[in-house]
Amino acid sequence: MTVGAVAAGWVHRHLLDVEGLTREELERILHLAVDMREARAARAHGSLLENEIVGLAFYEASTRTRVSFELAAKALGATVVDLGIAGSSVSKGESLVDTLRTLERTGVTMVVLRHASSGAAHLAARTTGLCIINAGDGTHAHPTQALADALTLREALGSLSGRTVAIVGDVAHSRVARSNIHALGTLGAHIRVAGPRAWVAGFEAWPGVEVARTIEDALRKANAVMTLRVQLERGARPADHLAWRLDEERMQLAAPGAPILHPGPTNEGVEITADLANGARSLIGRQVENGVPVRMAVLALLAGVA
Amino acid sequence: MTVGAVAAGWVHRHLLDVEGLTREELERILHLAVDMREARAARAHGSLLENEIVGLAFYEASTRTRVSFELAAKALGATVVDLGIAGSSVSKGESLVDTLRTLERTGVTMVVLRHASSGAAHLAARTTGLCIINAGDGTHAHPTQALADALTLREALGSLSGRTVAIVGDVAHSRVARSNIHALGTLGAHIRVAGPRAWVAGFEAWPGVEVARTIEDALRKANAVMTLRVQLERGARPADHLAWRLDEERMQLAAPGAPILHPGPTNEGVEITADLANGARSLIGRQVENGVPVRMAVLALLAGVA
Amino acid sequence: MTVGAVAAGWVHRHLLDVEGLTREELERILHLAVDMREARAARAHGSLLENEIVGLAFYEASTRTRVSFELAAKALGATVVDLGIAGSSVSKGESLVDTLRTLERTGVTMVVLRHASSGAAHLAARTTGLCIINAGDGTHAHPTQALADALTLREALGSLSGRTVAIVGDVAHSRVARSNIHALGTLGAHIRVAGPRAWVAGFEAWPGVEVARTIEDALRKANAVMTLRVQLERGARPADHLAWRLDEERMQLAAPGAPILHPGPTNEGVEITADLANGARSLIGRQVENGVPVRMAVLALLAGVA
Repeated sequence: MTVGAVAAGWVHRHLLDVEGLTREELERILHLAVDMREARAARAHGSLLENEIVGLAFYEASTRTRVSFELAAKALGATVVDLGIAGSSVSKGESLVDTLRTLERTGVTMVVLRHASSGAAHLAARTTGLCIINAGDGTHAHPTQALADALTLREALGSLSGRTVAIVGDVAHSRVARSNIHALGTLGAHIRVAGPRAWVAGFEAWPGVEVARTIEDALRKANAVMTLRVQLERGARPADHLAWRLDEERMQLAAPGAPILHPGPTNEGVEITADLANGARSLIGRQVENGVPVRMAVLALLAGVA
Repeated sequence: MTVGAVAAGWVHRHLLDVEGLTREELERILHLAVDMREARAARAHGSLLENEIVGLAFYEASTRTRVSFELAAKALGATVVDLGIAGSSVSKGESLVDTLRTLERTGVTMVVLRHASSGAAHLAARTTGLCIINAGDGTHAHPTQALADALTLREALGSLSGRTVAIVGDVAHSRVARSNIHALGTLGAHIRVAGPRAWVAGFEAWPGVEVARTIEDALRKANAVMTLRVQLERGARPADHLAWRLDEERMQLAAPGAPILHPGPTNEGVEITADLANGARSLIGRQVENGVPVRMAVLALLAGVA
Repeated sequence: MTVGAVAAGWVHRHLLDVEGLTREELERILHLAVDMREARAARAHGSLLENEIVGLAFYEASTRTRVSFELAAKALGATVVDLGIAGSSVSKGESLVDTLRTLERTGVTMVVLRHASSGAAHLAARTTGLCIINAGDGTHAHPTQALADALTLREALGSLSGRTVAIVGDVAHSRVARSNIHALGTLGAHIRVAGPRAWVAGFEAWPGVEVARTIEDALRKANAVMTLRVQLERGARPADHLAWRLDEERMQLAAPGAPILHPGPTNEGVEITADLANGARSLIGRQVENGVPVRMAVLALLAGVA
């Protein structure tokens, strides 16, 4: 598939969520990401975004996601300006919408937005003329992470059709899990979620999602396993960690060679053993690697240059 | 007017204040800003500042002014380095002058300086060999904001000669108001200021400035109205807000179609109603838009390349 | 010496310390720095690092060192990404090694690391595939500062062989002093250290280092004098400052014209008088100036392009 062919079907102005993207659209992004990875290695496409000014608006601090977007935008030749919001007093006293409208007036064309409030990216898209890329909003969505994870899984498993992916941990509070359920489900995977009741409540009602009673039930014959970071500040009990920790013995229940994913950063020894996190089955590093070309693909598509 | 013609009359090494600039010099900057706006849209002039290293030294946090200068410098091809001072521990323990002298030694040639102390930019200009651009010093001056406002008003009104501009609010504590009084007055406008007594005290003595007793007196037949941000932490009483708030009814007193300016960010419902701030007469967005080309013009003139 | 000739002997993958560098290697870096200074002035070498992505990982805030590295990397055409760690919440919750490994996956190739823990740079070099440049680790080492100081001294004194350099102050807690002792000693200088007992304890055992009993003994016939910043928070007594302060009278004891160095920022009136810090013998500004070309040389050598 050529970059030109990808462009034809792409009509969205923002990337707010993976929910609502068709399988075809997801496939296009993932194919373009592979092209972008090659282009980056070959130092090609270095001026594709030369007419764009990309603002990084991280209302929550983030090193990995911010750096990943910054490198993606720079690899395509965009002008990048970091609003430096998190940790500054600027985040107080002016509303998100006012700040973004001001940025738009300065000539910023695309904004990568991370915000603690679910729905912040949708609000920004509705109230400004900017192209908004959601880099994580509250517990709602983190679409580019899910796209990187989908690319990583497809490279490991081939097609996702009919494959079972187990997602273990605090699914309810995880924007990564939520976006992955949409993306992987749309790409044909069957999703099993598992965790303490409060962490999976409500997911029985999601189409294509099965709620497993125990981690063992979740892992049985799973073709891939994703564990989630335990937010230590969210008051899980130590017993919960033990009951839902991914370890070598439990991984024996999964399909032979089933890979392990984690959105990072990991709490080794809490939700996953250090051996598994750093072992041969772990795709954790690959997820990070795929983050840059996936974001290059998204930026190029939204800018209308791919 | 060509860029070359602008250069001939420009002899200043710094932009510390608009006070002291002649009408001719102001006109030159504003004309060049219009050229720069076109050049930016056409992606021209992209290497005009390739020999300059512009340091952003914001001792007070600022998103809009910092981003505006950063984009202006990058649009002209400068190397930009953000000193990242505000909010860091670096701002303590080393004096402003020592920090700037160190920067000068690293090869930085121009510094955009925002500082809480009135006179900081003058001090920097006197004690270093750097080209200093004042991005706001205490309650003293904010020349590039006034230049952007002057450009905005001229585009709305044509010549400012003989026009009356009302400035309402805490004029005494506003570096924006102070610089606007100088710039607009030099361009031929008559200035009326109005606000609670403590907010306008002393301005009777300024040449060409009239202190109005009420907001109604200030607005009567005014050709343009600028309201100022109420610094909520400066302890104005709620009754003051009501007495000096710009609303639709009061705007009826101004000349037909008189535009409204505000340096932003606005406190909607405090010093201005939301309807007016977002209405057809509002030039608030245009003020931000004009900030980038005005700063491009200032950078290019000070670097001696325009 | 040409840049190509420099490259041949350079086999290190990291710059963690000056300890262990041979005299020949030190000479090569210093010669290349002189070339780089000329190249920078001539805007040459602007794409030498175009294939490198340099991450700035300052776990301790620093303006001068960070800016110096940032300008060095940009002058050579590298992509630079500031991790923005100091002062952010990011520095908590994820280990140094995990953060750096993640960065490596995003495509970052070289990391400039400043960290409060002695040994942090060695740890990073051992546990990642990144090229690590130590920008200061605890009280251990600050190699590029020592290289800039060595270049500055050589320009002032010619060869350092057989010259005596006095280092006065809190040597024990100074990574700058420690790296200078290694660098200057390797280049043939004799080192005298002096300060309150706790500040020089243990240095009698260092080869080539003499511990002087008083500041007068340290300065007598010294060919150059380096004073160190008194870390006011480390609880030195005012009497210590008086006893070890560098002033005009004491400098009379040194060799005629002996230059004065200080890693900055100075506490004028504490460890050095203002007259000396700003006088004709002071090389403090030159040390900063030499910081950029020295860092360009290091980056180019480590990237294998010089």
